[in-house]
Amino acid sequence: MMKKKLNIGMIGYGFMARTHSNAWRRVDNFFDLEYTPVLKTVCGLVKEEAQAFADRWGYESVETDWRKVVEDKNIDLIEVCVPNNFHAVIAIAAAKAGKMVICEKPLALNVAQALEMTEAVEAAGVPNIASFNYRRIPAVTLAKNIIDSGKLGKIFHYRANFLQDWTISADVPQGGMATWRLDAKAAGSGVTGDLLAHCIDLALWQNGSISSVNAMTETFVKERKNVESGKMESVGIDDACTFFCRFDNGSLGNFEATRYARGHKALFTFEINGENGSIAWDLHDLQRLSFFDHNDSGLTRGWRSIHVTDGDHPYMSKWWVPGLSIGYEHSFVHQAADFLESLSTGKATCPTFRDGLETQKVCDAVLDSAKTGQWVNL
Amino acid sequence: MMKKKLNIGMIGYGFMARTHSNAWRRVDNFFDLEYTPVLKTVCGLVKEEAQAFADRWGYESVETDWRKVVEDKNIDLIEVCVPNNFHAVIAIAAAKAGKMVICEKPLALNVAQALEMTEAVEAAGVPNIASFNYRRIPAVTLAKNIIDSGKLGKIFHYRANFLQDWTISADVPQGGMATWRLDAKAAGSGVTGDLLAHCIDLALWQNGSISSVNAMTETFVKERKNVESGKMESVGIDDACTFFCRFDNGSLGNFEATRYARGHKALFTFEINGENGSIAWDLHDLQRLSFFDHNDSGLTRGWRSIHVTDGDHPYMSKWWVPGLSIGYEHSFVHQAADFLESLSTGKATCPTFRDGLETQKVCDAVLDSAKTGQWVNL
Amino acid sequence: MMKKKLNIGMIGYGFMARTHSNAWRRVDNFFDLEYTPVLKTVCGLVKEEAQAFADRWGYESVETDWRKVVEDKNIDLIEVCVPNNFHAVIAIAAAKAGKMVICEKPLALNVAQALEMTEAVEAAGVPNIASFNYRRIPAVTLAKNIIDSGKLGKIFHYRANFLQDWTISADVPQGGMATWRLDAKAAGSGVTGDLLAHCIDLALWQNGSISSVNAMTETFVKERKNVESGKMESVGIDDACTFFCRFDNGSLGNFEATRYARGHKALFTFEINGENGSIAWDLHDLQRLSFFDHNDSGLTRGWRSIHVTDGDHPYMSKWWVPGLSIGYEHSFVHQAADFLESLSTGKATCPTFRDGLETQKVCDAVLDSAKTGQWVNL
Amino acid sequence: MMKKKLNIGMIGYGFMARTHSNAWRRVDNFFDLEYTPVLKTVCGLVKEEAQAFADRWGYESVETDWRKVVEDKNIDLIEVCVPNNFHAVIAIAAAKAGKMVICEKPLALNVAQALEMTEAVEAAGVPNIASFNYRRIPAVTLAKNIIDSGKLGKIFHYRANFLQDWTISADVPQGGMATWRLDAKAAGSGVTGDLLAHCIDLALWQNGSISSVNAMTETFVKERKNVESGKMESVGIDDACTFFCRFDNGSLGNFEATRYARGHKALFTFEINGENGSIAWDLHDLQRLSFFDHNDSGLTRGWRSIHVTDGDHPYMSKWWVPGLSIGYEHSFVHQAADFLESLSTGKATCPTFRDGLETQKVCDAVLDSAKTGQWVNL
Repeated sequence: MMKKKLNIGMIGYGFMARTHSNAWRRVDNFFDLEYTPVLKTVCGLVKEEAQAFADRWGYESVETDWRKVVEDKNIDLIEVCVPNNFHAVIAIAAAKAGKMVICEKPLALNVAQALEMTEAVEAAGVPNIASFNYRRIPAVTLAKNIIDSGKLGKIFHYRANFLQDWTISADVPQGGMATWRLDAKAAGSGVTGDLLAHCIDLALWQNGSISSVNAMTETFVKERKNVESGKMESVGIDDACTFFCRFDNGSLGNFEATRYARGHKALFTFEINGENGSIAWDLHDLQRLSFFDHNDSGLTRGWRSIHVTDGDHPYMSKWWVPGLSIGYEHSFVHQAADFLESLSTGKATCPTFRDGLETQKVCDAVLDSAKTGQWVNL
Repeated sequence: MMKKKLNIGMIGYGFMARTHSNAWRRVDNFFDLEYTPVLKTVCGLVKEEAQAFADRWGYESVETDWRKVVEDKNIDLIEVCVPNNFHAVIAIAAAKAGKMVICEKPLALNVAQALEMTEAVEAAGVPNIASFNYRRIPAVTLAKNIIDSGKLGKIFHYRANFLQDWTISADVPQGGMATWRLDAKAAGSGVTGDLLAHCIDLALWQNGSISSVNAMTETFVKERKNVESGKMESVGIDDACTFFCRFDNGSLGNFEATRYARGHKALFTFEINGENGSIAWDLHDLQRLSFFDHNDSGLTRGWRSIHVTDGDHPYMSKWWVPGLSIGYEHSFVHQAADFLESLSTGKATCPTFRDGLETQKVCDAVLDSAKTGQWVNL
Repeated sequence: MMKKKLNIGMIGYGFMARTHSNAWRRVDNFFDLEYTPVLKTVCGLVKEEAQAFADRWGYESVETDWRKVVEDKNIDLIEVCVPNNFHAVIAIAAAKAGKMVICEKPLALNVAQALEMTEAVEAAGVPNIASFNYRRIPAVTLAKNIIDSGKLGKIFHYRANFLQDWTISADVPQGGMATWRLDAKAAGSGVTGDLLAHCIDLALWQNGSISSVNAMTETFVKERKNVESGKMESVGIDDACTFFCRFDNGSLGNFEATRYARGHKALFTFEINGENGSIAWDLHDLQRLSFFDHNDSGLTRGWRSIHVTDGDHPYMSKWWVPGLSIGYEHSFVHQAADFLESLSTGKATCPTFRDGLETQKVCDAVLDSAKTGQWVNL
Repeated sequence: MMKKKLNIGMIGYGFMARTHSNAWRRVDNFFDLEYTPVLKTVCGLVKEEAQAFADRWGYESVETDWRKVVEDKNIDLIEVCVPNNFHAVIAIAAAKAGKMVICEKPLALNVAQALEMTEAVEAAGVPNIASFNYRRIPAVTLAKNIIDSGKLGKIFHYRANFLQDWTISADVPQGGMATWRLDAKAAGSGVTGDLLAHCIDLALWQNGSISSVNAMTETFVKERKNVESGKMESVGIDDACTFFCRFDNGSLGNFEATRYARGHKALFTFEINGENGSIAWDLHDLQRLSFFDHNDSGLTRGWRSIHVTDGDHPYMSKWWVPGLSIGYEHSFVHQAADFLESLSTGKATCPTFRDGLETQKVCDAVLDSAKTGQWVNL
């Protein structure tokens, strides 16, 4: 049986372009789908670098002008894997050209952009994804399934952290290809858009809407050398951000992200406490889910450490055998598989741009609150 | 050699009176001190119950009127182990009568009381302790020693939680001997005074003063039956409280306490992140301290799990042998030992009432902020 | 109500005498019993040291000749807390004098002694305990209760370790008060009697009889200075011992003890794997029990970490509140309480000398097998 | 630059063929090598299944007779991914045909075969690997590097387990494609060859030669239905195997494998205790390495949990960023990369067939000892 082809135009050749390219390259080996991805074109500013990327990943051609890719009749899907300040212009152009769009997170620099992007893909009626990949770590998907089953009962608390330590040194520069995430112009914000956006996406998905937030941010290192200008420039991003909030379901939220938590490389965690049970997860040990079931017999109740590698766990029948872990990159393969599947079923797969917009609203409210020192309603 | 006697008058015969009585009974078996405690009198409302307590713990006499104990010439030290609303009146009277005073935490219902109490003991010049016992869990003391050594460098973050789950059921009553902690009149506040006070005490001790706070509280169960009246009454305490703050040293704080975190009996944790290292602790595994030393060789850096049971760890030479744990109650024995030692050296042992007052200021600011939704400066 | 008195004669004033004295001193504060212990006499070789011990723990008198204590009409119970080579002679004399006997583990130097001791207490009809204290760590007792409930189904594997690291240095001496455990004359054996005896006691209790064993021992440091003679002498004990075995119920056992496992202070663990579930425990975190229940729903199955501090957990209603740990020493308090209770009920409390004899048989078989390199049947 | 091609003939299309095919497919995306693998032919008994496998993984052609693949002039490398009883005949034929050979573990059914295979590849002078993939989990490689650095000092103990629970049910059949590992004719042995071979390979690599072993095996389920015959047949494999041993360096070993340890999917662990430090690892959390360094300051010594995901950790610069885990399958990618690299450098990469032969010798000695109940020297 011949598979239907999905021709992909990849905008960007950095870290995220690698994770997405890897996903497209692997999905057919593990999933049985009607559509097969074809790595058509990769686009980036420096032609030689784009070519090297194409050679490595098997793209058929390279391009340095993203508009040409967007307008290319042979391309079905545009992947936006560039710094945040280019998300909107590319995604909107792609939608207007009738392309499907997958856009890296955070969706945009701000709500205004995100709204315009969402309206563009919805007006065009094209499949779209805001690439919050962590929803598709099997343990995270399992957590969502448990929550949706109602096992936890009424929810009281949602807690999430994303703690890193890679910018503690004042010698880390800002700007450029490797450190654009520290440049407010390219990134829009610091840990709020880069890290908290992930936390917020999972929270909204697992626990519903947030009604109000109250936040604090800090920039510990006030000046950094700009890679491009070579000059010391003031730092415009938030190095750390903490906020608490109220969800529509009456539960309380507590969120924190930083790049100054020595000893934590990527301590991305969430915990949800309900009347009848609780769930916790940590990216450092991504194959495990912690689950407390208050309905267990009183004498033997305890937090269960579930090694989410059994055949009946989400996505795991596609991989190896029980006990054998998969990693970070597989979340992108799962997203690719679900997206391709959605083309067959016609049912949109989440998170869509609209989901990304909701997260953006919370991010903006958080930054707003941090600026004013006031609660901000959503 | 004859030991000097310290005659103790214990006000209260509830849970905390047990922990303190146990400490006095055990201290001589393990510590070599100039002073020996004598359990002179226990005082409580119901004579039979006071007598049963005296029989169990070896108090020489019982009393139902605390004023008589305070005025008793034979008593050297008054222990205040009663609900919070009686702390001030008893402690102040004791100080005025020239007695040393050890008062359970939180020191008072509010700053005004705490200030009056502090001024009373200082005016009287009597040794005094606000009994924040967790400072003397060996792993916590070790954490303090590591921090004071400067190993962590500049501090960026302080994080603390105290999560419980015992009041989730709406059938838990308020008021009375067993559940006065849910009665705003007796307790003053809910988790803020009961749980966060512990977190704040450690934070101020380990990380210095807090300059401003921003808080959110919630009361999940709005009405509970009052044990004494037998009637449903509205609940006046905070069931949950989250706050973030700024410390004078420039670091950020994030604190949370609740009695609605299913699966956590007493998840009292703190974590401190500095430029060169981090420390974390959890009451559930109180004999362990987690320590990350960034100065370790890059390839083999990792969080160390220190089993704080070696002879050179704080207090541990007094107990058993390496690997053998002690428990919660030993923190009170250590406090008793340090207090008795301080009588010999003449150097006050912390936390004093003044330390307790500082914690009270933060508690009040937190409750204030939660009420107004505004940052509160200290 | 006046309590009945149980007059105690303590033979020995070393480490184990401390743990037992502490237990007697504390039991009345926490348990409600018909009998109350009276610390009558402590006996040891050096009078001043015995006196210091008596002063510390409240013994009424001191003695240097254990025979006088055994013959003392006022003594009801003899506690044997001396090096292993004196267990038999004292315990037998005590039994013949009609005293109850509690003897530290291992019961004896060998099976012949242990048998004679067992026959002596049984002939005398006196209550007796071989003091394998770890049975009464609440998590260990809970494990036993779960096993007895049949929840695990048919048992396939029993695994136990006792790993320490305190004798790695060749400078640690042998003999004398502090290091008699390294002296074959005083201790009988090395890790087999000192550490594996604990593992074996729990195994026989939890999993029934062992039918055959196959063992390997090693002495890594061949010569050590003798504390008393001051001379280098060859080391007669086993530094490490590994054995596997078959239980009567068809399951397989795997046991190991050493004092050369760098990084482990007292890693005393057991694990039992049955058809329907498994249990694991570790002395380093003694308040936790790990339990896997295969009957849990497939998607959310995982090892549960039970924090054994709830009021309905074994012994825990006597102590503090959920989440607050007790320690090593409490196992002795529980043993004391159960022993006193057994005097009222007339039902013997285990482990008796006969239980200790069964453990001794396995220890001797293990040492035998290690010598011959052959399987040894029991 | 054109890459040199390495044409691969894959014999087998089962689980291991997937892991190897995946490795070849991915290696070029992450490693920069002179050689590039070409998936030329896959060979298996059922043509349709072979074709399906070829379609999925991109093999150019399929074959049902392995001899044709071995004789194919266009093939450079034969991958032996079939049941153990076909390893020898295929590998030897391949060597004789001048092909490089990668053979799944265990190398053979017994030492005689393994020796013949080893002599065949060595006589032919062809690059060869016995595919013990776990050496190339980054944490395991790091462990080896630490050991080789001499940091641990003199070694006292080596401990390894491989515990599973998938054959507890008597309804699991034997034989056929999915369960040939339970059929003695196809597998040679049970857990010894399947699981302990992995433990032994790492042990010999990390800790040197084993001089003597003493073992016990058990078959818990005596009869199982044969998938092919449909009849109940007696079970010829070992369900569980425990052995202890002595290494040439004077250290003691303790090994255990079973498929009856309820709750453990693939608890593959090792621990090595040296004079100055210890190391431990567990496949369930494969990205972590536990390391105890006795040279750390006494007060803050503890087991370090190293998250082996930094750029300077073995292989990790090729993947993502610190904190982001890779999984089981990556060990095969690393093996593929090292093998391709070895073709450029001309330096053989381990484990070779000769290494596999050494492991086979220990496996045979273990099975021998279990049969006779005697120590067996190597």
